[in-house]
Amino acid sequence: MAIRTVVWNEFIHEQNNSVVQAIYPDGIQNEIARVLSADREIEVSTATLQEDEHGLPQSRLDETDVLLWWGHKAHGDVSDEVVDRVQQRVAEGMGLIVLHSGHFSKIFKRMMGTPCSLRWREAGERERLWVINPSHQITQGIGPAIELPHSEMYGEPFLVPEPMETLFVSWYEGGEVFRSGLTYQRGAGRIFYFAPGHETYPIYKDENVGKVLRNAVRWAYNPAKPWKDVSDAPNVPHDKAPEKLEPKGASLHRAGEAGFR
Amino acid sequence: MAIRTVVWNEFIHEQNNSVVQAIYPDGIQNEIARVLSADREIEVSTATLQEDEHGLPQSRLDETDVLLWWGHKAHGDVSDEVVDRVQQRVAEGMGLIVLHSGHFSKIFKRMMGTPCSLRWREAGERERLWVINPSHQITQGIGPAIELPHSEMYGEPFLVPEPMETLFVSWYEGGEVFRSGLTYQRGAGRIFYFAPGHETYPIYKDENVGKVLRNAVRWAYNPAKPWKDVSDAPNVPHDKAPEKLEPKGASLHRAGEAGFR
Amino acid sequence: MAIRTVVWNEFIHEQNNSVVQAIYPDGIQNEIARVLSADREIEVSTATLQEDEHGLPQSRLDETDVLLWWGHKAHGDVSDEVVDRVQQRVAEGMGLIVLHSGHFSKIFKRMMGTPCSLRWREAGERERLWVINPSHQITQGIGPAIELPHSEMYGEPFLVPEPMETLFVSWYEGGEVFRSGLTYQRGAGRIFYFAPGHETYPIYKDENVGKVLRNAVRWAYNPAKPWKDVSDAPNVPHDKAPEKLEPKGASLHRAGEAGFR
Amino acid sequence: MAIRTVVWNEFIHEQNNSVVQAIYPDGIQNEIARVLSADREIEVSTATLQEDEHGLPQSRLDETDVLLWWGHKAHGDVSDEVVDRVQQRVAEGMGLIVLHSGHFSKIFKRMMGTPCSLRWREAGERERLWVINPSHQITQGIGPAIELPHSEMYGEPFLVPEPMETLFVSWYEGGEVFRSGLTYQRGAGRIFYFAPGHETYPIYKDENVGKVLRNAVRWAYNPAKPWKDVSDAPNVPHDKAPEKLEPKGASLHRAGEAGFR
Repeated sequence: MAIRTVVWNEFIHEQNNSVVQAIYPDGIQNEIARVLSADREIEVSTATLQEDEHGLPQSRLDETDVLLWWGHKAHGDVSDEVVDRVQQRVAEGMGLIVLHSGHFSKIFKRMMGTPCSLRWREAGERERLWVINPSHQITQGIGPAIELPHSEMYGEPFLVPEPMETLFVSWYEGGEVFRSGLTYQRGAGRIFYFAPGHETYPIYKDENVGKVLRNAVRWAYNPAKPWKDVSDAPNVPHDKAPEKLEPKGASLHRAGEAGFR
Repeated sequence: MAIRTVVWNEFIHEQNNSVVQAIYPDGIQNEIARVLSADREIEVSTATLQEDEHGLPQSRLDETDVLLWWGHKAHGDVSDEVVDRVQQRVAEGMGLIVLHSGHFSKIFKRMMGTPCSLRWREAGERERLWVINPSHQITQGIGPAIELPHSEMYGEPFLVPEPMETLFVSWYEGGEVFRSGLTYQRGAGRIFYFAPGHETYPIYKDENVGKVLRNAVRWAYNPAKPWKDVSDAPNVPHDKAPEKLEPKGASLHRAGEAGFR
Repeated sequence: MAIRTVVWNEFIHEQNNSVVQAIYPDGIQNEIARVLSADREIEVSTATLQEDEHGLPQSRLDETDVLLWWGHKAHGDVSDEVVDRVQQRVAEGMGLIVLHSGHFSKIFKRMMGTPCSLRWREAGERERLWVINPSHQITQGIGPAIELPHSEMYGEPFLVPEPMETLFVSWYEGGEVFRSGLTYQRGAGRIFYFAPGHETYPIYKDENVGKVLRNAVRWAYNPAKPWKDVSDAPNVPHDKAPEKLEPKGASLHRAGEAGFR
Repeated sequence: MAIRTVVWNEFIHEQNNSVVQAIYPDGIQNEIARVLSADREIEVSTATLQEDEHGLPQSRLDETDVLLWWGHKAHGDVSDEVVDRVQQRVAEGMGLIVLHSGHFSKIFKRMMGTPCSLRWREAGERERLWVINPSHQITQGIGPAIELPHSEMYGEPFLVPEPMETLFVSWYEGGEVFRSGLTYQRGAGRIFYFAPGHETYPIYKDENVGKVLRNAVRWAYNPAKPWKDVSDAPNVPHDKAPEKLEPKGASLHRAGEAGFR
């Protein structure tokens, strides 16, 4: 088994902001790829906004088991067509891990159906992510909490649907809280939102954050065969019904006609 | 109190299909409006695809408490701009009741984030909607089940997120089942999906279906003040933090600058 | 409409601890009753551990719409028989509001099925309860957060099932967080757990806490007729089946025999 | 890896009812054990009501990863002490699979907190279990539905909490429906309720039912170290708080004193 994993990054701050460049000279995508590679069952590559089709042509997505998404200032530059196909692949079974400012990415807002808004402050304050379920696959090996000396504050209310599982809740030095690790099931796909990762602090170099990312890739991986027709609406004709059935009443559709969409 | 309710209908089959016309000569929207009017606290009006902005300008949505949605063959003709504003109003607190083939409407797919697909058969077969929670506000007054002599079959798997509450599960003569009444909370808004309503059978004239619709309007109504800034992401400057806070580390944003989206 | 509400308290600390006595000379139950009475639709009375059947005979529970529960050091003294009947009444539709140290009460552990454990510290530290959904009925009128100058710390992990809705998350001065307002639906009954209320601080005299309690009573109230047979398992004989049915195969039970339990 | 699995059965009908004896001469527990053994990673043994401590002493539970539970007419004979320890082990991470009439077992009612009631009919009718999520680990390899030629009807309303995931919904020949496969997370433990299994029909010999059972054991298995102190409520003294903290206000407890329970 190899979990085919793609780390997507808009890759902008690392090229035009000297603070971010100093921390992630090769881009956040490559730092995260390095972190994931510590798990030999994770086979990792990267993709960025600047590539053709943002590096996510259909053929590549079809061979991707888990996609990580980091974006911040260029959410609007991601093409709707690429977002459509990522959304479809999640429904088919591709895992999706959305990181930090990705809360406002097109793909996360699509999957959630809600504004995904929050309040924020960039003051380098201390964040402590409390583990809600230390027996969950995603939280293995990290103890009762992750402490980040410098972090961006993300504060409640976080406008997302009630999750399947609340895995982390953050405490901030400035007085706010945030549900910083949340899981969702959507069709055949699993989604994990993980809040830490502001680009002006070396958060993806934190050992515990790295463990969470590796654990999350394994958790989000669905080994089932892709559910390719997950969006289809097949007609089941009356003579193919599981029970013997005499058609009655009026019909809108002729026999065998496709449904409206 | 009056719950300001709008019944939206694409209003096509009633104009070009003689079977549907015979059942709903004034359009499904007016039949449902009539049904809702039996509750004096529901103040009801209608809107259709053909009207300017589909009858849903911002000013009207701002004064709508609950919106019912019926569409089937023209989902693609609904403008994205109108869908955007309906989605925003649900987040702010407007209730949304999606009916029957509305499962494939743009607005429902937006709110769910999933394909909303299902399997179907138009054979006029018997449907029995079993009540899962007879003490719920939506199921008051209808007994253990609703029986429809002629219905379109909607079969599982239904590709929606696990609901907040499963209120109805349907049995079909031909052998399938369907989760036919589901509730969701999204931001300040409540959503109810209710499956019955195929246009070639007089389903909205069924007394129990009418009760469900009236109950659902009351359930979906959120009397709280609209959450107008639900999609905003306000910056909380360090000197406005609830706890005294000394800024530390590097920043991406200048003080007071708006966040990226 | 009057919501028949009973405030239950073990009523011990107020009788043997001078600090608590000074704050709640008439007992926490009477303070909460006073707070609830500000809403004229709430008809409130009290009950305590020391009364016959702890003040909760079947006849009284049958006429109770919402029960509030405060206990701390005498959870073990509550009789299982009374807990049984409270649990049954919640399933039938009585609302249940569990306060503070009631997390370890027999009735809350029964309803949750989990240990309901947490970590704690009694240091009079500051607590800030952030509102997750300001448009919810329970959070009306209290702004973005409730600030308590002195509170007992309750820390995660809180061993309860994932809730229907997370309404409050608390920040503590000492560095912990807690999901301090959670809702559940169980049968016809609604349950709200609300964390604040340590007896050595005058928390139930806080204006916002009072609002939450009044709002919660209204939210927990189910106006539907009690679901008296909610625990029954009726046999549906083959000749009473909704569809015509020929019995086949072997049977364990004779016709009309009651099921095993 | 070997998943240490125990199949528990009350083992009564197989000894005193000739129909059941003919189908399961060695008891349902041994039939299920045989079925599970087809997966080499499942290491299976059995336990019955009649054994000392019902075959579930603490030492054995401590070395059990997944427990399957089949009971029907002797739920009341299971000792509360054994139920207590099974419940604690589920919270610590042991998987629990509850089968058929086990819906009324003490352990299932404990874990759910609800009556777990339903309606039923023993008429040997046809049951069709529709798969809601064919990409779930539990539903692998079984196609869109499982068809059982003879089954006991279990009908809604099923009085359990809204599940984490609805995996199966059943159609019955006589006209009812049932949510026949449901998952729950409770503490570190996963729970799966699976409805089929009436003892007068050879349901556990069905190939697809067997696949579900094997899949469910793998799904319910939590490889994390047992969460042994899941029910503890540790005091965190002020000088061990994550943040520097000056104690303020009055205290109920002396420093280091254990909390009440």
